[in-house]
Amino acid sequence: MFIAKVTGSVVATQKVGSMTGHKLLVVEPYRLEDKKRASMVSTGRTFIAVDTLGSGEGDYVLVCQGSSARLTPETKELPIDAVVIGIVDSVHIEKRNVYDRNGS
Amino acid sequence: MFIAKVTGSVVATQKVGSMTGHKLLVVEPYRLEDKKRASMVSTGRTFIAVDTLGSGEGDYVLVCQGSSARLTPETKELPIDAVVIGIVDSVHIEKRNVYDRNGS
Amino acid sequence: MFIAKVTGSVVATQKVGSMTGHKLLVVEPYRLEDKKRASMVSTGRTFIAVDTLGSGEGDYVLVCQGSSARLTPETKELPIDAVVIGIVDSVHIEKRNVYDRNGS
Amino acid sequence: MFIAKVTGSVVATQKVGSMTGHKLLVVEPYRLEDKKRASMVSTGRTFIAVDTLGSGEGDYVLVCQGSSARLTPETKELPIDAVVIGIVDSVHIEKRNVYDRNGS
Amino acid sequence: MFIAKVTGSVVATQKVGSMTGHKLLVVEPYRLEDKKRASMVSTGRTFIAVDTLGSGEGDYVLVCQGSSARLTPETKELPIDAVVIGIVDSVHIEKRNVYDRNGS
Repeated sequence: MFIAKVTGSVVATQKVGSMTGHKLLVVEPYRLEDKKRASMVSTGRTFIAVDTLGSGEGDYVLVCQGSSARLTPETKELPIDAVVIGIVDSVHIEKRNVYDRNGS
Repeated sequence: MFIAKVTGSVVATQKVGSMTGHKLLVVEPYRLEDKKRASMVSTGRTFIAVDTLGSGEGDYVLVCQGSSARLTPETKELPIDAVVIGIVDSVHIEKRNVYDRNGS
Repeated sequence: MFIAKVTGSVVATQKVGSMTGHKLLVVEPYRLEDKKRASMVSTGRTFIAVDTLGSGEGDYVLVCQGSSARLTPETKELPIDAVVIGIVDSVHIEKRNVYDRNGS
Repeated sequence: MFIAKVTGSVVATQKVGSMTGHKLLVVEPYRLEDKKRASMVSTGRTFIAVDTLGSGEGDYVLVCQGSSARLTPETKELPIDAVVIGIVDSVHIEKRNVYDRNGS
Repeated sequence: MFIAKVTGSVVATQKVGSMTGHKLLVVEPYRLEDKKRASMVSTGRTFIAVDTLGSGEGDYVLVCQGSSARLTPETKELPIDAVVIGIVDSVHIEKRNVYDRNGS
């Protein structure tokens, strides 16, 4: 999995029938900043993931890719390759809090 | 999934039998431009995806990769790893419309 | 899928038993040249794919990766992650013929 | 699989139900330093993997990705794409010990 | 699949039970050198693959990734994402022998 920041959403009216009603989020994968190792920074990539947890813009989320994206109760049998499996509260690296949802 | 622009198509007469009749699109993955964060730009990569929705050149589409590409009604059991699952109407990032099908 | 040029082949005498008799091609993924957008160029990567269509050196082919590589009649149950699913006749991008098997 | 150093952990209270109770580690993939080829160095990437072996910060672990991440007794049917399958004791490359858990 | 050079091995005592007894090789993916196109060179990446063929340090091997890594008789149901499926005797590219196990 990777940590990503939710930065937006996608609207698609014409789609595969089974995708109706599923929220499509724009998520940008984050990585540890590698000089000071004290914060998370964007990788510059842009992915789209299905969300079933109610996460919103600004949230950091855990994204699962591949066939396992179909292993949540709401996404079985969907033609998707990425799903949000958790909303991140905090990330601890080498005893440091590099991200905290309630202000770091 | 990723957002891609449909920029062309591929013709292949000699192919695996089950692929007969499936439209093969050239799609170029797009990402958020990372300075102004106000538009989508090409990643410079080129993929081929099966389309079942009637999308055409110039459309922005959602592409699903991997085994899940086989989870649409028309692509079950096909030897494919990428399928168009939606035609994008609009992409909203940080309250901004970074793409709108009807002119941005 | 991606478009690749067949540039060679691999010989491996010691192999998993089920792989006996399967042709192993060296394929180099191609992408659209991004300045003039009028030709295909190598990505500089080198992959090995199983071929069941009789493609040969110099051909441009469509390569399917991942579990779907097992979804052709000849590759079921094989320990492979890439297979040729079509021999490319032509690639059209933005109304231009960027590749034609019979001379462009 | 790849070798990664465990450098932290993630807390996520809101998550897919089946993920409750599973430890989420921050792992950074390592590769062989390519000049002297005598040590492992970070690739600069950041992944999240499920751990079932009790590995902790500072450990080097083997990470399996994709659908096979669900093939351990504790991770069957989970929506995950990465799992720790071993804690590395040592890595030998070209007769040299490039990593040893008990001090190199 | 990709061609890789076997350059080492990994020892991991604490591991998922089903992994006991499986040899873990360090493999470095190789690609065609792209100026002269007459030899194979390292991509600088480091992977770990299960070997069931008895390949050893210095050998060039074919590595299969993803779920298909479980499709050899010895690796069924293992939590692995990479397996050696063949030991390379020779690689021919554009009529040239770019690798030969018995000296090139």
